[in-house]
Amino acid sequence: MINFDYKNPTRIIFGKGTIVQTGSVIKEYGGTRVLLHFGGGSIKGNGVYDEVTKSLKAAGIEIVELGGVQPNPRLSLVREGIKICREKNVDFILAVGGGSVIDSAKAIGVGASYEGDVWDFYAAGKVPQKTLPVGTVLTIAAAGSEMSWSSVITNDDGALKRPLDAQIIYPVFSVLDPETTYSLPAYQTGCGIADMFVHVFERYFTAVKNVDLTDRLCEAIMKTIVNNAKRVLDAPGDYNARAEIMWAGSLAHNNLVGTGRIGDFASHMIEHELSGFNDVAHGAGLAVIVPNWMKFVYRHDLPRFVQFAVRVFDVEQDFHNPDETALRGIKAMRDFFSSIGMPATLAEIGIHEKDFGAIAGKVKKFDEVKGTVGNFRPLGPADVEEILKLAK
Amino acid sequence: MINFDYKNPTRIIFGKGTIVQTGSVIKEYGGTRVLLHFGGGSIKGNGVYDEVTKSLKAAGIEIVELGGVQPNPRLSLVREGIKICREKNVDFILAVGGGSVIDSAKAIGVGASYEGDVWDFYAAGKVPQKTLPVGTVLTIAAAGSEMSWSSVITNDDGALKRPLDAQIIYPVFSVLDPETTYSLPAYQTGCGIADMFVHVFERYFTAVKNVDLTDRLCEAIMKTIVNNAKRVLDAPGDYNARAEIMWAGSLAHNNLVGTGRIGDFASHMIEHELSGFNDVAHGAGLAVIVPNWMKFVYRHDLPRFVQFAVRVFDVEQDFHNPDETALRGIKAMRDFFSSIGMPATLAEIGIHEKDFGAIAGKVKKFDEVKGTVGNFRPLGPADVEEILKLAK
Repeated sequence: MINFDYKNPTRIIFGKGTIVQTGSVIKEYGGTRVLLHFGGGSIKGNGVYDEVTKSLKAAGIEIVELGGVQPNPRLSLVREGIKICREKNVDFILAVGGGSVIDSAKAIGVGASYEGDVWDFYAAGKVPQKTLPVGTVLTIAAAGSEMSWSSVITNDDGALKRPLDAQIIYPVFSVLDPETTYSLPAYQTGCGIADMFVHVFERYFTAVKNVDLTDRLCEAIMKTIVNNAKRVLDAPGDYNARAEIMWAGSLAHNNLVGTGRIGDFASHMIEHELSGFNDVAHGAGLAVIVPNWMKFVYRHDLPRFVQFAVRVFDVEQDFHNPDETALRGIKAMRDFFSSIGMPATLAEIGIHEKDFGAIAGKVKKFDEVKGTVGNFRPLGPADVEEILKLAK
Repeated sequence: MINFDYKNPTRIIFGKGTIVQTGSVIKEYGGTRVLLHFGGGSIKGNGVYDEVTKSLKAAGIEIVELGGVQPNPRLSLVREGIKICREKNVDFILAVGGGSVIDSAKAIGVGASYEGDVWDFYAAGKVPQKTLPVGTVLTIAAAGSEMSWSSVITNDDGALKRPLDAQIIYPVFSVLDPETTYSLPAYQTGCGIADMFVHVFERYFTAVKNVDLTDRLCEAIMKTIVNNAKRVLDAPGDYNARAEIMWAGSLAHNNLVGTGRIGDFASHMIEHELSGFNDVAHGAGLAVIVPNWMKFVYRHDLPRFVQFAVRVFDVEQDFHNPDETALRGIKAMRDFFSSIGMPATLAEIGIHEKDFGAIAGKVKKFDEVKGTVGNFRPLGPADVEEILKLAK
């Protein structure tokens, strides 16, 4: 285990009927004029918009609206939000939606509290010191942004997708009502499940030794996701299964299970370039990359891949043939993604071999000197291209 | 899963050599005049006192000392601490020690910020609204107070032991350096391990259904404790094992694994009366009670006891005989406590049958109308007496 410094201050208000508390909770945090930030309008179809605005009005809160957040949220809308916050003296931002809406709200929060350009925090590595408080009402279990210190924004000009991680951008609260996810289409439910699974997976595959407790916590979350995924897809209105998936999605990315270890995250970085290239859903892109990343790197730490196969997917261990056990685990991973409706090849998501070189070259490097991405097994551009070929 | 409202704001600074950060971290939280609170002086023997005071002095912090906290920390010392904080204008409390020292520091923090008597929060159920900030340097992995919202104080006059749970008393930070626990005697290490195990155990045995994720998180922590307990007792200076046990101890009681469920806690309430009766170490008392509580209640939810046996202690499941499987799990629990040097009977800790009636009568009731304790299987005084008889 390596040393760590961990704090997650987000308050989670979880369960059936909790949206009615939103207005009074915002008042606890001093909010009086709220920017209500949302996406393409699905919250107007499923009743969430009405419930939230009713709760805010009942608490005497003034509402300023900004909808229209897209998947891979855009810098231009963030800038518009910052302008509105200043003009209207907004003192609290409420994100109602999934990860894209929350990431956009976090960006508006730090941007509105800063003299310079908000893109400094994303493109230039500047650390934000202040933010407007951000609360969330989550309607998609996937990204984990509702309990994370991360935000990813895409620049409209250059299709540059850049992350910000900062202690100050944890939401002050998040309301998680599993019933809000009943109306999510099966494909989006599947993409969300793939995304949250891979958040844990990336932390699980570490080169750090002696990480018993966090290994087991990771396995606990991954097994829960696998066991409940089929239930929510078979019965979209199964409250218990939706609740397990929703809480798992937050714990998958709130940094707790990454304490004392260094995650890999090469698959995430490769996938970011697929999304940038072709507006692929993040979970779908991950489902294509991950099993092929596994095939490419599994011999680097065979015992860890055997442990993954046995403990997460209940693969029967062949003690005389660890390679075979590891490969069965990789197949189980592939089969799981297929079972939740995820694509298996780059061709299925419209990405072809002629583009592999360009994509591999664009992947953000963790180590600029060595030119590699990933921590479990650092990969150069040629390695990334091999993985893309395995995934074609 | 039931609805919940969860927030844990404690910052954890974990690892080898982290004590040197204590002074600068206190300054981040605005501390300038610190009450340094500790126990019987073991921190002077193992070098922790020197390291901490050096760090505080280097940060230009003024130190006021109050040592002498006993196991089952006393109200009289809390009152003395409150008086000192007022007289010396203390603006931060640093607890250096284990759960007793931290619980005492939390009591001083709320008492110093309140016009009335601090005992109101413990005996009269008043909710504290303000506190001096409390930080900790943990030297015993056991109680989990370093990341919890709990404090238990014993009134000197009546041997009344009373708990306070409040959002405001989470420490602002805790420094966890596993090396500080190397010098802990084997018996105290064992008591700490029993204590942390039972914190998870009490949450695990719930009557709430559909709690897949938190079941698995509980199992992850319990398995880690079991697997690393022998390692720390065999080799007290095994950093990796000490680190697993220390982080497990905090996660065991920080409320995360209790989200969405209602724990039992009858064994804790019964044990509190043993400690009150005979100054028994908390972990030792729990080790005596828990396996006998299990024997008394296991038929109430046999599948949960089978799950515990199979998943936590790797008991080979007899599918045709769940009773047998559950009983093997109970035996494994008993054997584990014995393997870490814990007593098995009340006689060994000096408590005899003539006192069982009095002890059973004193146990704090959760349900005053029905007169019962425990949530998994509510127990009346006659039930508690039966458990004490099983434990004689």
